Amino acid sequence: MEFKIIKKSKKSRARIGLLKTSNGVVETPSFVPVATRAVIKTLTSEEVLATKSQILIANAYHLHLRPGEKLIEKNGGMHKFMNWPKPLMTDSGGFQVFSLGFGKDHGVGKILNNNLQQTAHNKTINIGQQPKLLKISEDGVRFTSYYDGKELFLGPKESIKIQESLGADIILAFDECTSPLADYEYTKKSMEVTHKWAVESLKAKSKSQRAKRQAMYGISQGGKFKDLRIESAKFIGLLPFDGFAIGGEFGDDKSKMSKMLRWVINELPENKPRHLLGIGHPDDMIKIIKEGVDTFDCIAPTHYARRGIAFTSQGRIDLGRTKFVNDKKPIDKNCDCMACQNYTRGYIHYLLRAREITPLRILTFHNLYFFNSYVEKIREDIKKGKI
Amino acid sequence: MEFKIIKKSKKSRARIGLLKTSNGVVETPSFVPVATRAVIKTLTSEEVLATKSQILIANAYHLHLRPGEKLIEKNGGMHKFMNWPKPLMTDSGGFQVFSLGFGKDHGVGKILNNNLQQTAHNKTINIGQQPKLLKISEDGVRFTSYYDGKELFLGPKESIKIQESLGADIILAFDECTSPLADYEYTKKSMEVTHKWAVESLKAKSKSQRAKRQAMYGISQGGKFKDLRIESAKFIGLLPFDGFAIGGEFGDDKSKMSKMLRWVINELPENKPRHLLGIGHPDDMIKIIKEGVDTFDCIAPTHYARRGIAFTSQGRIDLGRTKFVNDKKPIDKNCDCMACQNYTRGYIHYLLRAREITPLRILTFHNLYFFNSYVEKIREDIKKGKI
Repeated sequence: MEFKIIKKSKKSRARIGLLKTSNGVVETPSFVPVATRAVIKTLTSEEVLATKSQILIANAYHLHLRPGEKLIEKNGGMHKFMNWPKPLMTDSGGFQVFSLGFGKDHGVGKILNNNLQQTAHNKTINIGQQPKLLKISEDGVRFTSYYDGKELFLGPKESIKIQESLGADIILAFDECTSPLADYEYTKKSMEVTHKWAVESLKAKSKSQRAKRQAMYGISQGGKFKDLRIESAKFIGLLPFDGFAIGGEFGDDKSKMSKMLRWVINELPENKPRHLLGIGHPDDMIKIIKEGVDTFDCIAPTHYARRGIAFTSQGRIDLGRTKFVNDKKPIDKNCDCMACQNYTRGYIHYLLRAREITPLRILTFHNLYFFNSYVEKIREDIKKGKI
Repeated sequence: MEFKIIKKSKKSRARIGLLKTSNGVVETPSFVPVATRAVIKTLTSEEVLATKSQILIANAYHLHLRPGEKLIEKNGGMHKFMNWPKPLMTDSGGFQVFSLGFGKDHGVGKILNNNLQQTAHNKTINIGQQPKLLKISEDGVRFTSYYDGKELFLGPKESIKIQESLGADIILAFDECTSPLADYEYTKKSMEVTHKWAVESLKAKSKSQRAKRQAMYGISQGGKFKDLRIESAKFIGLLPFDGFAIGGEFGDDKSKMSKMLRWVINELPENKPRHLLGIGHPDDMIKIIKEGVDTFDCIAPTHYARRGIAFTSQGRIDLGRTKFVNDKKPIDKNCDCMACQNYTRGYIHYLLRAREITPLRILTFHNLYFFNSYVEKIREDIKKGKI
């Protein structure tokens, strides 16, 4: 993999780059749609191409459980299996250490809701113990499979081996994504384990020709704590990774995101690509790109589409609402995607109410197209010196 | 509407025709995919075009309940509403008189299962009374809406008015589709009401320019009884309809289908198009086309697709079965559709097991393409004099 910075903004840390992989080139900054299970939910790979998507991210944990990395390897790897001809990333399973662990126990995602923000700031959360369904040790994590209750151990060695079998262009070091509820002590301890796993992930990489074509990104953590964020970025940034991912929470509220990203990115090598994990609503995009993020993944466009919600140039709209019953306008009058050329809000509203599958697809298509077009526009603006 | 017979087979009653509507031409014989609710479940209209579909059939009863024919009319009619540029038919709601009436009460569809065949032949079914959820009178049928329990009255006048608002190219007279369990007496009485409704449907047709562009087909019934089938086809065949649909059951087992169709088609005018309602598995296609059927609709390709089942040149396969887990072949090696070019049985199997939406679409696409290609081949064979 090769990363070439084409242009740097004079007004911010934003930059235009080309991420060259053996499966094609990604123009950065780029949004990365989430294909957790080697499919963009509701779409075929041909359609995903038509949404101007350049690179997708799948998940080693999910694919290990089903259908298993060995089966995918026998099918010639993920690209062939899912018929996706462009670059692919895989996440290491480290996010599941959080989402199936403390995240599940405390009912939180990466971003806290308002009630929990208060809790997190005002009282100590009992975060030092093990979560219910996982056992985290220095070697890795023992999961209980949600399919059949079987135990499953994932550590850096296991994760890298799985990701090598899956065959994505970019793979991620194994980490623990820390809960936004975690206190300083837990976050520090967790970060130190993540650092140990980063070194082990690098060591675990095999020497095969195939593995050589795979780039590996390290993941920095550190929660909401400035000194930990800086320490982690420094440590991970010095390791010989091909790029760097930034994990964990970015502020109980989004106003802190830019500041926190700056702590991290200041410490990362300038010439390597940076991926922000799991963040990238349209509202966040300019902010994170201005801080020097090159790629970022987010489930928002696909997740909300399946709940009837479209992203538009006028903000989010919930097409399930009665006010759209007789709306003859397209989802977004400023969008030139297949969905906006062909269907009215009224028709999509009707199909959602009739519990049809088709509108989920129409909206998934539109939302991905919208996200990709939005970033495309930002790239243009950086090129023109506007950002 | 104009119907032109291009070629007649010398070996059978099969014929090649062109059905010209103001929204384009249908080459017959043609399969008619079922878009009950103004959508082919899981697909967009653009995709349906890519399956080589020429004409779709929607349902006046369902669309009346939701979103209502008035809303569709305000949107410029069904073609515009669902973005389907080719011909459309609507069924009158007469099938729902059966499916929501005796069909529901007795747990039967148009074709009986083996246990019920015995029952139907061996003992008298209490069919003379009213079904539970409907009240059938000489004027029409009182339904209870399955959305909100509201009562809804549908007779010939109401059905034709709805269908005129929907704006399909071909609309159907209102009828009662009789249950395959019905005895001679009930079937005869029901047929007579259907005949009365046929005359009233013709009378109900408005004189507007728009309505003039709509063709109306009469529906012959008569159940499994030869004299009733002939009487009904004679009666309906003499009325000034633009074409003729054939409704109701066609044999407790399919071996009787050809014989029963012959009773009917013998009595129908040669120069008018004939539509067989709700029948058309690949196994039936050559049979029904040989008897002189021009168009026929069937839910099989779309219905089975959503249950993981593909139609192939080697017969039906259930891709949910474990034996496909590592199958790298396409759904059908003889098929050149998008799905067969791009995805393996193994990938589709995996996605079905993961309860994804994408495989339902891939299979719906393939099945429709397969059905349309199958009929295309039959047309070629008739042209070449092989059938």
